[in-house]
Amino acid sequence: MPSMPDTAAARTSAVAFDPIFDVELARRALAEDVGRGDLTTEATIPAGTRAQGRILAKADGVVAGLPMAALVFRLMDPDARISLIAHDGERVSRGQTLATLEGDARALLTAERTALNFLGRLSGIATLAARCAAATAGTRARVVDTRKTTPGLRTLEKYAVRMGGAANHRAGLDDGILIKDNHIAAAGSLGAAVARARAHASHLIKVEVECERAAQVDEALEAGADVILLDNMSDDAMRAAVALIRARDPRVVIEASGNIGADPERLAAVAATGVDLISLGALTHSAPVFDVSLEFDAR
Amino acid sequence: MPSMPDTAAARTSAVAFDPIFDVELARRALAEDVGRGDLTTEATIPAGTRAQGRILAKADGVVAGLPMAALVFRLMDPDARISLIAHDGERVSRGQTLATLEGDARALLTAERTALNFLGRLSGIATLAARCAAATAGTRARVVDTRKTTPGLRTLEKYAVRMGGAANHRAGLDDGILIKDNHIAAAGSLGAAVARARAHASHLIKVEVECERAAQVDEALEAGADVILLDNMSDDAMRAAVALIRARDPRVVIEASGNIGADPERLAAVAATGVDLISLGALTHSAPVFDVSLEFDAR
Amino acid sequence: MPSMPDTAAARTSAVAFDPIFDVELARRALAEDVGRGDLTTEATIPAGTRAQGRILAKADGVVAGLPMAALVFRLMDPDARISLIAHDGERVSRGQTLATLEGDARALLTAERTALNFLGRLSGIATLAARCAAATAGTRARVVDTRKTTPGLRTLEKYAVRMGGAANHRAGLDDGILIKDNHIAAAGSLGAAVARARAHASHLIKVEVECERAAQVDEALEAGADVILLDNMSDDAMRAAVALIRARDPRVVIEASGNIGADPERLAAVAATGVDLISLGALTHSAPVFDVSLEFDAR
Amino acid sequence: MPSMPDTAAARTSAVAFDPIFDVELARRALAEDVGRGDLTTEATIPAGTRAQGRILAKADGVVAGLPMAALVFRLMDPDARISLIAHDGERVSRGQTLATLEGDARALLTAERTALNFLGRLSGIATLAARCAAATAGTRARVVDTRKTTPGLRTLEKYAVRMGGAANHRAGLDDGILIKDNHIAAAGSLGAAVARARAHASHLIKVEVECERAAQVDEALEAGADVILLDNMSDDAMRAAVALIRARDPRVVIEASGNIGADPERLAAVAATGVDLISLGALTHSAPVFDVSLEFDAR
Amino acid sequence: MPSMPDTAAARTSAVAFDPIFDVELARRALAEDVGRGDLTTEATIPAGTRAQGRILAKADGVVAGLPMAALVFRLMDPDARISLIAHDGERVSRGQTLATLEGDARALLTAERTALNFLGRLSGIATLAARCAAATAGTRARVVDTRKTTPGLRTLEKYAVRMGGAANHRAGLDDGILIKDNHIAAAGSLGAAVARARAHASHLIKVEVECERAAQVDEALEAGADVILLDNMSDDAMRAAVALIRARDPRVVIEASGNIGADPERLAAVAATGVDLISLGALTHSAPVFDVSLEFDAR
Amino acid sequence: MPSMPDTAAARTSAVAFDPIFDVELARRALAEDVGRGDLTTEATIPAGTRAQGRILAKADGVVAGLPMAALVFRLMDPDARISLIAHDGERVSRGQTLATLEGDARALLTAERTALNFLGRLSGIATLAARCAAATAGTRARVVDTRKTTPGLRTLEKYAVRMGGAANHRAGLDDGILIKDNHIAAAGSLGAAVARARAHASHLIKVEVECERAAQVDEALEAGADVILLDNMSDDAMRAAVALIRARDPRVVIEASGNIGADPERLAAVAATGVDLISLGALTHSAPVFDVSLEFDAR
Repeated sequence: MPSMPDTAAARTSAVAFDPIFDVELARRALAEDVGRGDLTTEATIPAGTRAQGRILAKADGVVAGLPMAALVFRLMDPDARISLIAHDGERVSRGQTLATLEGDARALLTAERTALNFLGRLSGIATLAARCAAATAGTRARVVDTRKTTPGLRTLEKYAVRMGGAANHRAGLDDGILIKDNHIAAAGSLGAAVARARAHASHLIKVEVECERAAQVDEALEAGADVILLDNMSDDAMRAAVALIRARDPRVVIEASGNIGADPERLAAVAATGVDLISLGALTHSAPVFDVSLEFDAR
Repeated sequence: MPSMPDTAAARTSAVAFDPIFDVELARRALAEDVGRGDLTTEATIPAGTRAQGRILAKADGVVAGLPMAALVFRLMDPDARISLIAHDGERVSRGQTLATLEGDARALLTAERTALNFLGRLSGIATLAARCAAATAGTRARVVDTRKTTPGLRTLEKYAVRMGGAANHRAGLDDGILIKDNHIAAAGSLGAAVARARAHASHLIKVEVECERAAQVDEALEAGADVILLDNMSDDAMRAAVALIRARDPRVVIEASGNIGADPERLAAVAATGVDLISLGALTHSAPVFDVSLEFDAR
Repeated sequence: MPSMPDTAAARTSAVAFDPIFDVELARRALAEDVGRGDLTTEATIPAGTRAQGRILAKADGVVAGLPMAALVFRLMDPDARISLIAHDGERVSRGQTLATLEGDARALLTAERTALNFLGRLSGIATLAARCAAATAGTRARVVDTRKTTPGLRTLEKYAVRMGGAANHRAGLDDGILIKDNHIAAAGSLGAAVARARAHASHLIKVEVECERAAQVDEALEAGADVILLDNMSDDAMRAAVALIRARDPRVVIEASGNIGADPERLAAVAATGVDLISLGALTHSAPVFDVSLEFDAR
Repeated sequence: MPSMPDTAAARTSAVAFDPIFDVELARRALAEDVGRGDLTTEATIPAGTRAQGRILAKADGVVAGLPMAALVFRLMDPDARISLIAHDGERVSRGQTLATLEGDARALLTAERTALNFLGRLSGIATLAARCAAATAGTRARVVDTRKTTPGLRTLEKYAVRMGGAANHRAGLDDGILIKDNHIAAAGSLGAAVARARAHASHLIKVEVECERAAQVDEALEAGADVILLDNMSDDAMRAAVALIRARDPRVVIEASGNIGADPERLAAVAATGVDLISLGALTHSAPVFDVSLEFDAR
Repeated sequence: MPSMPDTAAARTSAVAFDPIFDVELARRALAEDVGRGDLTTEATIPAGTRAQGRILAKADGVVAGLPMAALVFRLMDPDARISLIAHDGERVSRGQTLATLEGDARALLTAERTALNFLGRLSGIATLAARCAAATAGTRARVVDTRKTTPGLRTLEKYAVRMGGAANHRAGLDDGILIKDNHIAAAGSLGAAVARARAHASHLIKVEVECERAAQVDEALEAGADVILLDNMSDDAMRAAVALIRARDPRVVIEASGNIGADPERLAAVAATGVDLISLGALTHSAPVFDVSLEFDAR
Repeated sequence: MPSMPDTAAARTSAVAFDPIFDVELARRALAEDVGRGDLTTEATIPAGTRAQGRILAKADGVVAGLPMAALVFRLMDPDARISLIAHDGERVSRGQTLATLEGDARALLTAERTALNFLGRLSGIATLAARCAAATAGTRARVVDTRKTTPGLRTLEKYAVRMGGAANHRAGLDDGILIKDNHIAAAGSLGAAVARARAHASHLIKVEVECERAAQVDEALEAGADVILLDNMSDDAMRAAVALIRARDPRVVIEASGNIGADPERLAAVAATGVDLISLGALTHSAPVFDVSLEFDAR
């Protein structure tokens, strides 16, 4: 029964800077729920009462967000003992214990909902991501997310996508060049847009171009795009585009996008066209919650 | 074609304090997506370019979050002209224009995803809330939300629930007393928990108690609970509990909860038991996104 | 000589989230006083000097705010040993030791004024609240505070009121419905205002209405108000209103308000009218400071 | 009928940086009172309702904090028209109109309590400061404040002291050297403490030393103190010390301190000893609120 | 009774989100300098005094940071009229007017030092960057910056580098892969490190490897590095490495780094080796300030 | 070889308030560099890898900023063991070990650049300050800094100046009165400006006046200035002014300023004129970085 090593414990309860498990985000979430105080708990639980309990999975899936849940509990009780029984990215079953907790009863009860809200949402994303990734297993296609994330939770949600076994597209507008129709229109032509992007971008960034028609694919290759996004094409059109691109430059990465959805059969069909990446907004904008609960031991 | 009056315009783009459409939340969301700058737009769109476009519904539903979307656009371009064609709480159809925009092309493109992420998520919640509320129409039962909301978005999501025609349960732990099993266990008995809550609470707060069995309902009535939550009961058990409560004290409010789900038939059946409230976590934790897009006019 | 248990010590010196003893408020207060550094202490006290001392009451009264003072000292010296000899809510006498301190001399001297400013103000409120509460002892009337608090210190001041033995009215505008004359005027009538409030409010919130005349009390009862505030009435008028209300609905809570002041005789007279609550702005807006000092031991 | 000039108006409602009328302080104060929304106002006042009213003095005194009150109203309604009829530092009478307001009814009602809380507290301080300053009029003694201020309101409270006609002592620990007994003890002797302070301080800062006995005054003069604080001395002892200091160095500034209190007769007696400054903690830690109200015009 | 005019525009644009000219950074800088108030200006300049003046270059160079300086002035006086005569990236001469100002005299004087501190530092960087870029003109080598920037000013300093005509390397650790010796050691071998980076990185990111010896260059090419950094090599060694790389894969980008310094002759020599990029920490960590001043017109 | 004790280590990385080594500044600096995560380190260094290394001086100079560097490392790894071998203010030699580190390899690598950026910049300032201070050794003239500091780093840079052995001028506009030409013009005359400053300033503040001509020196003495700044005068003019001032009032402090620069010979010449202070903007606005590096031990 592995527990979080002491080091990790100290870190989460302190002010350690962490770009993913952000202590300020956890504090804001707690403040949002606790407000001026937990009226019910203060009224009914005597100060100093201890409690122990466990976080349980109420469904099968892939768990993500356990360190964030632990951070929330530790913000209410820095001395709480939290042992992670499962770990982010692990496949878990209904009824399985994900973590055990021991600490101040008031603090744990007050933190419960906020901690579970993080855990349920992130595990929901990881579980959907795992299902989608499985649908393309054995092909060269990787499922990737989009920027259609929950405002304020981008970093956590993209982490949950990775925990589910899918991959990340851009983290933000500063994290890669992706030229879409409006950029092309403003630049005058696809070629002009790519040229401007090359001149502007750092030498470490690749240039991706969204294409809706075969003619655009041609123009993109001509302009030297590093990545080509096939948007809203039929499977046949995609297959043809892939063939064309592979023939012209095998280093070019090919992404499929546009109303593909999280349906396994559809994903397998798109993967079969030979693309490298399939991007899915649904991973983050429509994943149903993964049900988790906190059960306290009878005293 | 009604537009937001000047007053509203000035307020949303300024530093006006608003507990719902929070400017700091909008700034954090923009910062999260824009990071160090929108590389693609800076490279391809000449500074000073103007653009106009419209936000379109891509499905039928109930819209919510238009002022938040407008706030996001105005944070990037305080001089953008934004006319809301639809209004929060309105039922809209696929293809319908929700708002028109005119402003700096770079700013609008950079803000697009963040604005739509708010609008899609909140409209998704409003649409689901409207569907659930419709299922109990004609009964005394109101559909209400829970505290199972997205961390950081509680106030906006509860607003979206209201826009969909459902109602709100507690905004947070400081906003009402709701005694659950752990509180009862710590207090020694249901009666003791209610007594402590009465002594602790302000005179403006009611006391609600969660009951899983008929015996608890009895004890709750005895203890003087103002609201009784029937948790995870069968429809027959609920019907019996409702009869008992109404007979004893017609002022007591009755809530049904526990794995009811957003299914219209199930909601109608629960409503038929005679309860006053049906609480649904799904309204906020599992509402699928409502699809919206921003179309720019050809230049 | 009881000391704060280790757990509490660790919590106050860490980033623990606490809606009452807010670490950010303590940091802002320290920053406000320390500015760019304590010039005198840095110049005259050698680095590494140790000090021990005690916080003394300089008057008789009720203490409140010791954990906040401890938090301030710990923000300057996380390793300081602070033992609370008295506890919040306790009646103390002039000359009594409230806490002992041992730690870095520079840190303790730099933190002294900020810590005592919190302690003196909150103990001043608790002391006044205790005096007012005593004046109504033996009656059904509870003394309650108002929203006339110091900007930025609402939560702490309302905590001090409780420590003094009085009770809290609304924590804020979102914490209960209280309909006043302007709301009635805008709604058209008292009855219309109550009806709108009922429809708008959560099922956990009661509706209170301010009445200045007997006719309004009647209208309020008719409209189904849960709580009636008798504003600026003579004692005779209050007595008559109480009789009327009790006859009509014994569950209705009655509050007296308006220029009552913190005078014990006046409070007793109002309590004798039979009201349930007497609200006093003076508890928080005009409580004189409670004198405390920090004495360092001779070295 | 003078109003705030356009420039000032624009500045207070915008994000203009102002070290006294701090927009973040105003926002925190509003957030503290409004919480998740003004339930009563939202329920009873229709959106778009306009209101006009006036802020009235309910007592005689000196007003301070009108720009802060205006800032609070403008944070809720940036388009509110606010005309200041009185100005900070002005003596006003019971019943006098201090400002007129016209704006969104919901916004003004929601902001009312927060705005008045600032105005009442600051005017209370200004009024007390004016009374104390008047008590020493005609002498060389100036009444000054201390660092015994409300946590979070230091800058505003010291501003109110100035508006009342008294003066400010140190703004914080970084704003001047003031050597007290603990510093002397740690440095070994008063002379050593002064010498260290001189070596450490910038050339723009004077060195003040607290003396409790005549011998210390001697030592302070010897050490070259710029300012001497006579702490807790009898009037006779003060008179003697003043004579000694004036004889030795007429440039040295003399301050009296210690349990003097805000009593006019006592202040006059201390001023008669010939000191330059009399510091009073009561100005900021025990000033009773100045009563103000907001009256809306009948519609 | 005057109302707020067009200043609404100034107001709203003040809060605009901008990843480069960050309003919070400007506020913190002002707060740092102004502290509790500009004592000299408040004492000597009557309220309401108007002033006009101009910002002058006191040396020849390339200007950068004018919008940041304007933002600082506007935070003190939102109604100040600021006309930029020069523009960022422009070469200016000693004595040339960069901008004219007209506004509240107190506000402009208080903001002066903070505004000029930004402008002088950023123009210093732009001027040095321009000198370095000129040294490699006519070659394929671009001068780029590093992450050796001033804490807190990364985005502004990298902007100034661009304004000077040089280019940017990584904006941060999340903005590209750059494998150095410690990463190689931990991964076991250069090839293993590149393989892990490929598997971990998004499809839009290139992989760069730092090589100190020819053997490493070979290994890097073998491993499929997109960019090769030649660190601390002699010119001859660089020339040889360039030849090798070009022969093996003309798409690979080559960067030179390590103690090259901002000396034009040295830069020309390095450029002559045929590399694509020369990175210089000195651009941001050692650029001397560019002298600017604010002259007010005589009144 | 003294090291920071473990306890203190753990705590300094926590929330301790420190006006110089500000944890929020350190967090912002880390966030600026790390962004959404250190891609290279995450990809190549296995989680849990340990590392040890040392910070080395790469040049001769005076070190400053080691506690800030330690704070940065501890924010990434609160359990890192950091032993400071050198101490701020110490003269160090090229190759000397300044500190040893042991901790989580990922954390130390990720923090490296941010920590070194603080250390290099502050040591650069301390080194230049030491060189300038040495140039006036044996004279009564102290070298002081100015307000020409890096926005956001004022407190740290002024600390580095002290560590180098030079002294500080004003910390900000609230920290002393310094009357310049624009203040004189607005006040009408130098004498009027001094009189207003005296009336406005606290009794602990001295009044300094900038003089460009002998006639102004005369006027300043007449007006009772405490400090006279000789701006942009020739050495002969300064000598004459010093003689005049010393004759009139030996207590008046004399400062020289204006394009003096960090040249030792020039500083010695100015010191020889007999002034008390020489202020140098170059100390903070143009100090070249001090080269430091972090070497990890081979594993």
